[in-house]
Amino acid sequence: MLESTMQDSQLTISSMLEHSRRVYATSRVLTFEGDGVREASYGEVGARAHRLASALQELGVGRGDRVGTFLWNTQEHLEAYLAVPSMGAVLHTLNLRLFPEQLAYVINHAADKVVIVDSTILPLLLRVADQLTTVEQYLLVGEADASALGKPVHAYEKLLADAAATFVWPELDERTAAAMCYTSGTTGNPKGVVYSHRSTYLHSLASGGGNTFNLSENDTVLPVVPMFHANAWGLPYSGWLAGADFVMPGRFLQAEPLAKMIETYKPTIAGAVPTIWNDLLTWIDEHPTDMSSLRVVPCGGSAVPQSLMKAYQERHGVRIIQAWGMTETSPLAAVSHPPKGYEDDEWPWRSKTGRILAGVEMRLVGESGDVLPWDGTAVGEVQVRGPWVTGSYHLDPDPAKFDGGWLRTGDVASVSPEGFIQITDRAKDVIKSGGEWISSVDLENALMGHPSVREAAVVAVPDERWVERPLACVVLRDGASASPKELSDYLEDKVAKWWLPERWSFIAEVPRTSVGKFDKKVLRAQYADHELTVEQLTP
Amino acid sequence: MLESTMQDSQLTISSMLEHSRRVYATSRVLTFEGDGVREASYGEVGARAHRLASALQELGVGRGDRVGTFLWNTQEHLEAYLAVPSMGAVLHTLNLRLFPEQLAYVINHAADKVVIVDSTILPLLLRVADQLTTVEQYLLVGEADASALGKPVHAYEKLLADAAATFVWPELDERTAAAMCYTSGTTGNPKGVVYSHRSTYLHSLASGGGNTFNLSENDTVLPVVPMFHANAWGLPYSGWLAGADFVMPGRFLQAEPLAKMIETYKPTIAGAVPTIWNDLLTWIDEHPTDMSSLRVVPCGGSAVPQSLMKAYQERHGVRIIQAWGMTETSPLAAVSHPPKGYEDDEWPWRSKTGRILAGVEMRLVGESGDVLPWDGTAVGEVQVRGPWVTGSYHLDPDPAKFDGGWLRTGDVASVSPEGFIQITDRAKDVIKSGGEWISSVDLENALMGHPSVREAAVVAVPDERWVERPLACVVLRDGASASPKELSDYLEDKVAKWWLPERWSFIAEVPRTSVGKFDKKVLRAQYADHELTVEQLTP
Repeated sequence: MLESTMQDSQLTISSMLEHSRRVYATSRVLTFEGDGVREASYGEVGARAHRLASALQELGVGRGDRVGTFLWNTQEHLEAYLAVPSMGAVLHTLNLRLFPEQLAYVINHAADKVVIVDSTILPLLLRVADQLTTVEQYLLVGEADASALGKPVHAYEKLLADAAATFVWPELDERTAAAMCYTSGTTGNPKGVVYSHRSTYLHSLASGGGNTFNLSENDTVLPVVPMFHANAWGLPYSGWLAGADFVMPGRFLQAEPLAKMIETYKPTIAGAVPTIWNDLLTWIDEHPTDMSSLRVVPCGGSAVPQSLMKAYQERHGVRIIQAWGMTETSPLAAVSHPPKGYEDDEWPWRSKTGRILAGVEMRLVGESGDVLPWDGTAVGEVQVRGPWVTGSYHLDPDPAKFDGGWLRTGDVASVSPEGFIQITDRAKDVIKSGGEWISSVDLENALMGHPSVREAAVVAVPDERWVERPLACVVLRDGASASPKELSDYLEDKVAKWWLPERWSFIAEVPRTSVGKFDKKVLRAQYADHELTVEQLTP
Repeated sequence: MLESTMQDSQLTISSMLEHSRRVYATSRVLTFEGDGVREASYGEVGARAHRLASALQELGVGRGDRVGTFLWNTQEHLEAYLAVPSMGAVLHTLNLRLFPEQLAYVINHAADKVVIVDSTILPLLLRVADQLTTVEQYLLVGEADASALGKPVHAYEKLLADAAATFVWPELDERTAAAMCYTSGTTGNPKGVVYSHRSTYLHSLASGGGNTFNLSENDTVLPVVPMFHANAWGLPYSGWLAGADFVMPGRFLQAEPLAKMIETYKPTIAGAVPTIWNDLLTWIDEHPTDMSSLRVVPCGGSAVPQSLMKAYQERHGVRIIQAWGMTETSPLAAVSHPPKGYEDDEWPWRSKTGRILAGVEMRLVGESGDVLPWDGTAVGEVQVRGPWVTGSYHLDPDPAKFDGGWLRTGDVASVSPEGFIQITDRAKDVIKSGGEWISSVDLENALMGHPSVREAAVVAVPDERWVERPLACVVLRDGASASPKELSDYLEDKVAKWWLPERWSFIAEVPRTSVGKFDKKVLRAQYADHELTVEQLTP
C-alpha cells in the first residue's frame, strides 16, 4: 500500500501557545477591573504560562493530573487555559454558579489536585472546602485570607515570580486529555466531558474559518460567556490561535460595565447568552453607547428571539448571529449566517438555530429510530458526531446518550435542505398535545416579540383531555402591563390556533440554571406543587 | 491516566465531499470554454464524483492504486480530486508542461494504473505512451482518436453515465495516502510528495481561516494556478470545503480570456504566479476591465515584485498578497498580510515573502547548523515542520533534504520578530561575493521596478577576484530601451554599492521551468558555455 509522506505532527495546545506567543507577541490581553484595564501582551502571557507550568510542576502536578479553575474571565484564566494542557495536565473549569453540593461533586469526581481560585469568589469555594477529598493545594489570585480552605494556599503572583521561567513542553499525542467541563444537566449529577488537544485545536481552526467567525489578528474578542461554561464557546483558544486582542470582562457582567467596555475597548466580536444581550439592550436604549466596533456577535445557549436580533440591528447596528452547540460539542456545531443569495431576505435564515458546520456530521432521528430527511418539515432528535464531539462521559459511559457512535443532543428540530437546524424544543421540554407536538421555543419567541414582554418561558402541564397543554410564564417589562387575552390575541397570527395557551402565569423572573438557561424543571415543579405566588397570578 | 472522551473521527476527503455536496448543494462550478461556461452545481459534481468512483472501481482501481490526471483546471479535474481519494485510491496530478522523459518518469515511478486525460492535450501524452509501463487504461475527457495510446480508452461521460450512482465511501484512517504531486526540481529526477487525507483536511481549514484567505460560501474562486502544480495551492479543496463557487479557467490562461472571466464571472479570489499577473496587467492597462469583484489575490511561486502589486492596487484596485510554500508544504506555509496597526504603512510588510502560518513551525538555520534569531537581519536556510509538511519522498527518503525532522526548504531568508520571512535567495542561487552574500532576488525586484524592464533574472557567475559576481539578465518591455549604465544608476540608491552588477545581458525571455519559475540553471549554463546569443549582448 502506498504510504503518505506527510510528517506525523501532533495538534497540541503547546504549539498554539508557542506560535501566537512569538508571531503575535504584541497582541494584547486586557482584563477589565471596573475603572480601567490591566494589560499584558501575548509575549507576557506566554512567558507567564511557562512560569505557571513550572510552579504547578513544583507543587506536584504531573501528566494527567487535574487543575481546577474557579475564576472569572481574566488574564490568569487564559494563562491556565494555555499552561495546564501544555504541560500535559488537564484543565478543569469550575462553574461559579453551581449549587454547593454540585460544586463539591464535580471537584471530587474529577479528582482535582490543585484549584486556582479568584479571591473575589473565595467565599463560594469556602462553603464546600471541607467536602473536597482530592484537592491538595490552592493557588489564590488576588488578596484574601484563604486559611479556612484548610490546605496550603499559594499566592498566584508570588508563585509565578519564584518559578522557573522556562518549561520544556512535553511532546504529547494529540489525543491526550487537555481540559474538562461538566455539563449542567438539570437532572442527575453533572457529567464530565474531557476534551483532547486534537479536539481543541480542530475546534479552534473551525471557529476561525470564513463560514464561522473569520477570526484574525485584527479582531478584539470580548468573551462575556464564562470561560467555565463550554469553554466560553472556544473563544479563548480560537482567539489566541488567531492572534486577536482580548478584552476580558472579569466579574463585570452587568449591562453598564459591558456597555463601557464595548465603547472604550472596541471589541469586534463578543459572545454572550441572550439574557445578557437583553439586559444590555435595555441599558443602551436608554444610555446611547457606541457599539460600532462590533462586526459580529455570536449568541446562543438558548434560542435567540428574532425581536432581540432586530432591535440590535435596527437601533444599534449590531449583527447578532445565532450559534448552537453544547458542552459535549466543544461547543460550536452550527452557526446561522444566511446562505449566499439571501442578503435581502436574511431574517428567515437568521432566525433558525444554526447551519451545521463542516467537521460536524448531523442526522435527524425520528421517534421510531428512523433517519429523517432534511426537508424543513420532518421533526426529530438532532444527533451529531465528529472530531470535537464527545463519545462518552468521564467515568460514566451513559449509553442512553449515544446511538451507534452518534451523540443524542436532546434537541428536537427540523433541518432545511441547506443544513439549517430549527430547534423546536428540548426533547424533555416538548409539549405533546393530542398526539401532536407544540414547540415551546416557538411560543416563547413569538411571545417575546410583544413590546410588553421581557421574557417568556413555556412549559408542558398535564391536561385531562389533551394529555399536555402549554403553560406560558411571562415576565413583563418594568411598568408594562398585558392581559392573557391581549397576549393570546397577539399570538393568533403567529402560531397555529391549537397552540394558543389557556394557562398563563405572570412571574417576576424566569428561574435559571447555573449557566443561565431557563430552568423549566423548576417552573414545572412550581406548577405541579401549586406553589404559584401572588406574582404568578394573572393581574 | 485520564482519557479524553472525544470521538475518534477521521479527517477525510469523503467527509469534505459529503458535507459540501449537501449543505452547499446549489453552489456552482463553472468551467470556462472560450465563449462561455459550462455550469454544474455542487450537488451535481458530488453525484458525479460517486459515479466516477464507481467507474474506476469497475476498471479495477482499488485501495492505494494511483489514478493520474492529465487535465486542465476543469470540473472533471475537481471531480477526480474528490472521488479518487474518497474511494481510498491516490490522485496523481500530472504536470502538463513536463518534458516527455520527465512525464514518463513520474507516471512510471508513481505506478499510475489509470490516467484521465483531456482530449486537447492528448498529443502531449501520446509522445510518451509507449514508455508507460504501469498504465492499464485511460479515461478520455472530450472527443479525440486516442487509439494510439495503445491501451483501452474509455469516454469519461459515457463511463459516468453507465456507472452506479452511489459509491459507499470506505472508512479510512486519516493518515491514508490521498494524493501525490512530484516536485519540479531543476536537478535530478522529480520527487514525489504523497499527501494524506489528514494533511489535506488541515491545510484546507488553515487556508480558509481569517489570517489566511477567509474563505466562505460567499466567495467565487478562480484557480488560475494549475491543479497539477502544488494542488493549485489547495484552492480546489479549501474552496470546496467552504462551499465557494468556482470559475475553472480550463486551458484559457492568456491575459485576454482571464480578463473576460474576471469581468463576467466576478471571482472574489484568484490565485496565479507573478508571470500571469504581469501579462494580465499589460492587457488590462490597455483594455479597461472591471476587476472590482476581486477581494484578494494570492500570488506566489516566485518573488512578487512590489511594483507589480502597486500597479494592480493603484490602477485597478486589486489587492495582491504574497504567499509562500512549495509542493512539499501542501503548499501554503506563509502569507504576507500586513500585521495589525500597519494599515497606513503596509508596503514594507507586503513586500516580504510571507508570515508563517499557525500549524507550520519554522526555524532559520545558519551555514554552520546553528539556529538563528528572528531579528530581521540574520540570514539562513528556512526549515519547517508540521502536519501538512512532507517528511520524505515517495520511494526516496532523500535524507539531505531533512534535518532532524525539519524540511530543508532550500530558501535562504531572514525572519522578522513577527514571523515574516524575507527570502533573499534559493540556497543554490545565492551569490557569494568576497565572503558576503548578494541576494539575487533583491536585485531582480529592484530591477523590475524600472519602467523599461519587463523581467529580470540575476545569477551568479565565476569571478577571479570575488569568487562570484552577479550577472543581470534583463527582458525589456516592447519598444523600451535601457543601457546597463542607466539601469545601474537606477539601482544605486536601492541596493548596496558592492551589489551593482558589472555584467549585463539583454534577453528576449527568461527561460522557465515547467511550473513557470525562472530556470537559473539554464541561464548559468548559457553563460558558462559562452552560448550568449546576439539578443544577449549589451545593446
